[in-house]
Formats: sequence, C-alpha cells, structure tokens
Amino acid sequence: MMVQVISSVNEACAAKFHHKTAIVIDVLRATSTIVTALAAGATSVLPAETVMDAKSLQRPGDLLGGERFCRKIAGFDLGNSPPEYTSDAVKGRRIILTTTNGTRAIHKSTRAEHVIAASLLNAEACAKFALELRRDVVVMCAGSHDDFAIEDGVCAGMLLNRMRKFCASSIDTDDFGMAMESLYADRRDHLEEVLLHSASGKRLQKLGQKQDIECCAQANTIHEVPYLNGDQLVLRY
Amino acid sequence: MMVQVISSVNEACAAKFHHKTAIVIDVLRATSTIVTALAAGATSVLPAETVMDAKSLQRPGDLLGGERFCRKIAGFDLGNSPPEYTSDAVKGRRIILTTTNGTRAIHKSTRAEHVIAASLLNAEACAKFALELRRDVVVMCAGSHDDFAIEDGVCAGMLLNRMRKFCASSIDTDDFGMAMESLYADRRDHLEEVLLHSASGKRLQKLGQKQDIECCAQANTIHEVPYLNGDQLVLRY
Repeated sequence: MMVQVISSVNEACAAKFHHKTAIVIDVLRATSTIVTALAAGATSVLPAETVMDAKSLQRPGDLLGGERFCRKIAGFDLGNSPPEYTSDAVKGRRIILTTTNGTRAIHKSTRAEHVIAASLLNAEACAKFALELRRDVVVMCAGSHDDFAIEDGVCAGMLLNRMRKFCASSIDTDDFGMAMESLYADRRDHLEEVLLHSASGKRLQKLGQKQDIECCAQANTIHEVPYLNGDQLVLRY
Repeated sequence: MMVQVISSVNEACAAKFHHKTAIVIDVLRATSTIVTALAAGATSVLPAETVMDAKSLQRPGDLLGGERFCRKIAGFDLGNSPPEYTSDAVKGRRIILTTTNGTRAIHKSTRAEHVIAASLLNAEACAKFALELRRDVVVMCAGSHDDFAIEDGVCAGMLLNRMRKFCASSIDTDDFGMAMESLYADRRDHLEEVLLHSASGKRLQKLGQKQDIECCAQANTIHEVPYLNGDQLVLRY
C-alpha cells in the first residue's frame, strides 16, 4: 500500500486522489473539532467553504460552528474549539462547520474514493480504518494559509507509524512521508510541546486559547473515525 | 536570526530572498558536485539553466558539466557525479554546470544578498559562514521535479543543528525548519541510508550510480563554502 503525504492544501491537485483513501489532517483545529463533535454525539458535520454557504445550508435544529482569524464567527452557535463541542452542546444535532484551512482541505479531497478526518485524538483509529479500506492513501496535511504546519506533519508521521505497526511489510511512502515519520519518532513524547511551538499554536496562545492546544495534543483518546458520506462527515468505528 | 526553510524550488518566490542569505541545497547531486569541484581546484562554477545556455557561455579552457535525466549530456566533458570532479580533471578550470534541479534553484535565489551552496559534504562550514554574514537566512531545498527530496531536508536539518551549536540563543525557524531538525536528529547516524531510500537515490541506483550516493552522504569532509560572486560560484573559507 502506497501512502503519499501532501505538505499543505496548496500542493493538492485532484489527480492525486483518484481511487484512493484521503486522510485529511488539521490538528489545530478543524479535524480535532470534527472528531470531538461526532464523538460527543453530533449526528454529522457538514463542512462549508464560506460563512455564507454555512448560513444557507442551515436547517432547523442545525448548529453553526467555525472560525475566521481563529475567532468564533459573529452569529454562530460555536467556534472552532474542541472543548466547546460537549455532549450537552451538540448531542443529536447536525453541525455546519466552516474554518480557514481544514474545511477547504476536505473539499479539495472529495475526488478520493474515501475521505476520513484525522487528528492526534484519533490517529490510531484512522490508521486501522485506512488499512481496512485497502486503497492507496493520500495524507493531506491542511497546513496554515498554504504553509506547512508542523502539528499536521507530526500527526501524518503518527499515522504512518501506526499503519506500519498494524501492517508492517506492505507500507511504502514518499520522501515527505519518510521525513514526517522521523519527525514523529523524534517528538512523539513531546506532542504538546510541538503544538505549543508551532506557528498556529503561537497564534492561539496569543488569543488566549491555550486550552485548545492542550486538548488537541492528546494522542488516541478517541477510537472513532469521521468518514465523508456524501457531503457530510459521520462516525465509523 | 530567522532561518526559513523552503521545501522545493516550486515554493520559492523572489520576495522571500530580499536582504537575506540564501543557502541552496541539492545533495543529489548539484551542490555536492559544485563543492567537490571547487575544493578540487576548479577556479569557479557558472550555473546555466539550459544546455544551450551552457554551450554559449563556454570560453576556451572551460569545461562543460551537467546532466539531464541523471545522465551526462552528449558532448559535455563531465556529468553531475562528484567523483568525476577530481583535481586532475578540473584544477585551474572554470566549470559551466547545468542540472535539472540544482542550477534552477541557484537561479531562483539570486535576489538574495548572499547565495551559498550547501551539501552534506560542507554543511558545517556553510552554517558557520551564514552566521558570519549576519543576515536572516532562507534555506532552499532544491527538491526533485518540484517535489520535496528528503536528502535536501536532512541537510537543512544539519545546517540548523550546526547554527544552533555555534549560536544557540538566537536561531529561530519556521514549522518546516523545526520538522527538518527532527528529521536530522532522528537520522543523523544513518545519512547514507536516508540517501539510498530517497526517490532520487533509488533513481541513481537503477542507473548504476550508487557510488555517487556514498560520496554525497559523507558529512563535513569539506571545510569550504561555494559563494555566488556575480554569476559564478567561487570558494570562501
């Protein structure tokens, strides 16, 4: 099985996704929020590219969530902080989510045969699930404003590490994938520190959202996988 | 001092280089060849973008060197293999060099205030020299056909490692630079293996040029720095 790793949304082109499983990563914070929301009982998450799209897609009972410039959007029910997505807040509700990088990355991946959303919170579950799908894999690090984001890279490295653990002989990757495996090997015991020192992490700390970083740095606390079914992400076990 | 790391030529734009020191890396093989040629006594290396440019720039006494599809160009004196650039072959001669990725990366960097060529062979010398120049640094990994090449990344990581060693307190880098430092930390004792498993390394092995990889994987055997003076690279100590 070939596992290609793309360093940022900027690098993605549709041809790379055909007949493959796409694993989208936006650790700070879209995919961490998505997996948290679904694990807390939201029925589905519908990614929307723009604020206007999000508002026009809302049906009675839906919650609007998302951020622009790392802050909650005016008039929205929720921001893009995983700790906001508690069972009390989201159980039984559909979430319409729009974020700067993560939702764009999901939209870019829709040519893939399967699309799943990974974060540090559920990387191991995603690795197992991707192996079950028996397709070559494209791991898409969403990055930040077209730049590589180290928190997405270290998560890509963890995915590769777990895929090798479960299926050692048959995992091949590209140069960027090998580099991300080394990044993970070097920093696996210091994930929160990696996030705190990342460009996105520094931005969030300036805005007083350090608790989001602590939350997103937890490894494999959730054992479920958000899977794109039509235009909505739903849980797969 | 800020040290930004660019993952491939594709990612480079002129604005990133203004008032900075550019360190260009193409471990397999252009910058390894350039530093070997100059250390062996070539008077200078003139990078040319095309085969036609190289031929038109040749003056009596100059040697033509370079590759297309990893092979020596028909009618040229030398290929792009560092072991060809012996003292006997190049002493006192100017080399006109054209390669697929490396010479293009050098041309892309010419907006920088200083341009130097780094490889594993002379990374430590380049780190020291860049610190002496007292400018922010852009490390440009040439990559291979617009993709990231892990051998360039591990060299960028070694540069950062040595810059921190000589000037610990004042080196800052971006997310990609931090990832390359981890790559180097994880693989520093296995540099030849990194090169053998890289996409470029596999291509060279298929073409029977494994000895180039062994040669380019030697760390810090050369203590000199190719520096762009006008349009030619010359040695700085």
